[in-house]
Amino acid sequence: MFGVTAAQCDWFNLELKPLLAHNMAGKSIPSFQAADLVFQLLSSSTRETTADVSTFGTCFTDHMLTIEWSVTEGWQPPLIKPFENLSLHPACSSLHYGIQLFEGLKAYRGDDNRLRIFRPMLNMQRMANSAKRACLPAFDQSELLECIRRLVEIEQDWVPHSNQGSLYIRPTFISTEPTLGLKTPTRALLYVILSPGRPYFANGGKDVSLWADPKYTRAWIGGTGDCKMGGNYGGSMFAQYEAVHYGCEQVLWLYGEDHKITEAGTMNIFLHWINEDGEEELSTPPLDGLILPGVTRQSILDITRKWDEFKVTERYLTMAQFCSALKQQRVKELFGSGTACMICPVGLILYQGENLHIPNQEKSSLLTTRLTKELEDIQYGRTASDWTLLV
Amino acid sequence: MFGVTAAQCDWFNLELKPLLAHNMAGKSIPSFQAADLVFQLLSSSTRETTADVSTFGTCFTDHMLTIEWSVTEGWQPPLIKPFENLSLHPACSSLHYGIQLFEGLKAYRGDDNRLRIFRPMLNMQRMANSAKRACLPAFDQSELLECIRRLVEIEQDWVPHSNQGSLYIRPTFISTEPTLGLKTPTRALLYVILSPGRPYFANGGKDVSLWADPKYTRAWIGGTGDCKMGGNYGGSMFAQYEAVHYGCEQVLWLYGEDHKITEAGTMNIFLHWINEDGEEELSTPPLDGLILPGVTRQSILDITRKWDEFKVTERYLTMAQFCSALKQQRVKELFGSGTACMICPVGLILYQGENLHIPNQEKSSLLTTRLTKELEDIQYGRTASDWTLLV
Repeated sequence: MFGVTAAQCDWFNLELKPLLAHNMAGKSIPSFQAADLVFQLLSSSTRETTADVSTFGTCFTDHMLTIEWSVTEGWQPPLIKPFENLSLHPACSSLHYGIQLFEGLKAYRGDDNRLRIFRPMLNMQRMANSAKRACLPAFDQSELLECIRRLVEIEQDWVPHSNQGSLYIRPTFISTEPTLGLKTPTRALLYVILSPGRPYFANGGKDVSLWADPKYTRAWIGGTGDCKMGGNYGGSMFAQYEAVHYGCEQVLWLYGEDHKITEAGTMNIFLHWINEDGEEELSTPPLDGLILPGVTRQSILDITRKWDEFKVTERYLTMAQFCSALKQQRVKELFGSGTACMICPVGLILYQGENLHIPNQEKSSLLTTRLTKELEDIQYGRTASDWTLLV
Repeated sequence: MFGVTAAQCDWFNLELKPLLAHNMAGKSIPSFQAADLVFQLLSSSTRETTADVSTFGTCFTDHMLTIEWSVTEGWQPPLIKPFENLSLHPACSSLHYGIQLFEGLKAYRGDDNRLRIFRPMLNMQRMANSAKRACLPAFDQSELLECIRRLVEIEQDWVPHSNQGSLYIRPTFISTEPTLGLKTPTRALLYVILSPGRPYFANGGKDVSLWADPKYTRAWIGGTGDCKMGGNYGGSMFAQYEAVHYGCEQVLWLYGEDHKITEAGTMNIFLHWINEDGEEELSTPPLDGLILPGVTRQSILDITRKWDEFKVTERYLTMAQFCSALKQQRVKELFGSGTACMICPVGLILYQGENLHIPNQEKSSLLTTRLTKELEDIQYGRTASDWTLLV
């Protein structure tokens, strides 16, 4: 059960009791409905007009979506109302026991001035998985997406007029159980806030540096590494602090005695290389329970498999394999992927006291350059694709 | 690094930058001071008079302690004010990234009507460790304890007049950083709420049943299992749900391919047994980074070592060792320990499809009965001890 290749735990197949109502095969899940949306909107004169998009996730739009749930009353009608602070009981179990999860997706303003959300159903599905893992109630994924679409529509002026910017959408789901006994929540709040911005790593195309030390572990088989729950991030804070202490920007998370490469900071990771057999290959770790199933990760796999120009694999690589490939000049590119940063090339890894420099190729020939263009062409509507939802 | 016997990671020895100010050997830590306490108290006519102590952690006293911190202004004066909801920014990183931690300790009303808090400095120390791990700012532990003592003094009428009841004290420390980028918090809130109650497992002395399945892991080397951070608990919710599904009350957390016994639910665990060499022994897992350093755990070790009547060890036992001892009738008692429940005997373990019944001895001859009495005698002031702080 401790080997990374071991079968994943079967928690998701477990039938939950009716109140949580996950996995109700063939039955409709008791859920809020977008048709019941209640609107409490600011008058146009009191709405903000400009957005400070200088730093990721610091500026928020005028309105938010909130949906309350309780075990006795079920889901309440969804509400779009002015952005405001949450009023939470001090014993609220999201603040004590980390019963909380989130998602991140983006809406883009195309060259045609239409707004598109990128592959949102993948986020809805992952959110439903995280909710089940956290013992928070199920909901109809399409209904949530429609509520989000309506919110983005109302806030459409906030989507940047820029082929670099986007509106970051942050669905959040927390327990509001107001008691100290650790238990399945009887109250919860699902809410969505929006933040206009540029890509997360706005370091002007500069490659990121990673600190790789096996003494910290991000996730473990039997843990929650494949769910977007808060605890995965809080537990990583000190390692990130130490990475900065050693002059690096992010952590490269290793796993196991053989130092498998798993994730980078809050990104999935890809290696484009010539493998031991001399084949060109793009590799990323498999979804075995440790790895967050990233939407950008999946999109890169889908795009490169469609190209069918080189081998595309989901498998672990160890630091020894990486170092050997680097020494033999078989590394073409190492990069992280995520919704916030999209694609982020890695320039250096500090590992066992040594700075491993990853050579830069001509930018125009890079896989990351090509992938970024292909993804942006879809996101900004320059290429027709069923991956985007028109707002 | 993956063996449980491997050296613990050295995160705690790392020097933090001045703003967090942990580990400032020989220097005073920038901290709030109890002397600066501000009081906003309810008039006696508006204060509650009776407490519903039927369920653990559902009823709270009239007042709470709050202390705000920001990187620009430092610690603000501590404030004791009426109990009320928190107003939190929806992007608050305690709600998204689990940057949160808590403590649990108790005040008891003695037969002499004086109030005593049990070993509070151990909680203050553990809280400081958790704060460092979560990249939350340092504080003077004695100053926090004095603020808590003042709060308990104000709420003294809430401490039950009962040799079963107590006032549960819940210090909580959360990031209030209002931005979505994952970063060291620049704002935080430390608060303390109080809840009168009976012991957590009020099942009338009935032994607890545990579900042991290696597919879930509570904590791992390189993680946060030794800190009281929210993520440790949120990640355990689904396993607890599954334990109940299988008719058990709590999870017995196993670790590694050899199924080491680590913790039970949210309790430390002890085995009182005759070991392989025929010696009477009390064993509990060692503090190697996986295990929460419980105050009740430490107290049981201290008391039994002082008795010097049998071997007392901090070492791992595997399920195979336990099953073998059970078969050979070498198990005297298995029990959990924690502040909420104090001491909780285990009657059954469901493991690999088998119900392992732990035989009941005559209650008066049990170690748990004797330990409970010794601890309660200290807590309720029947035995003089420097383990209690008079309020």
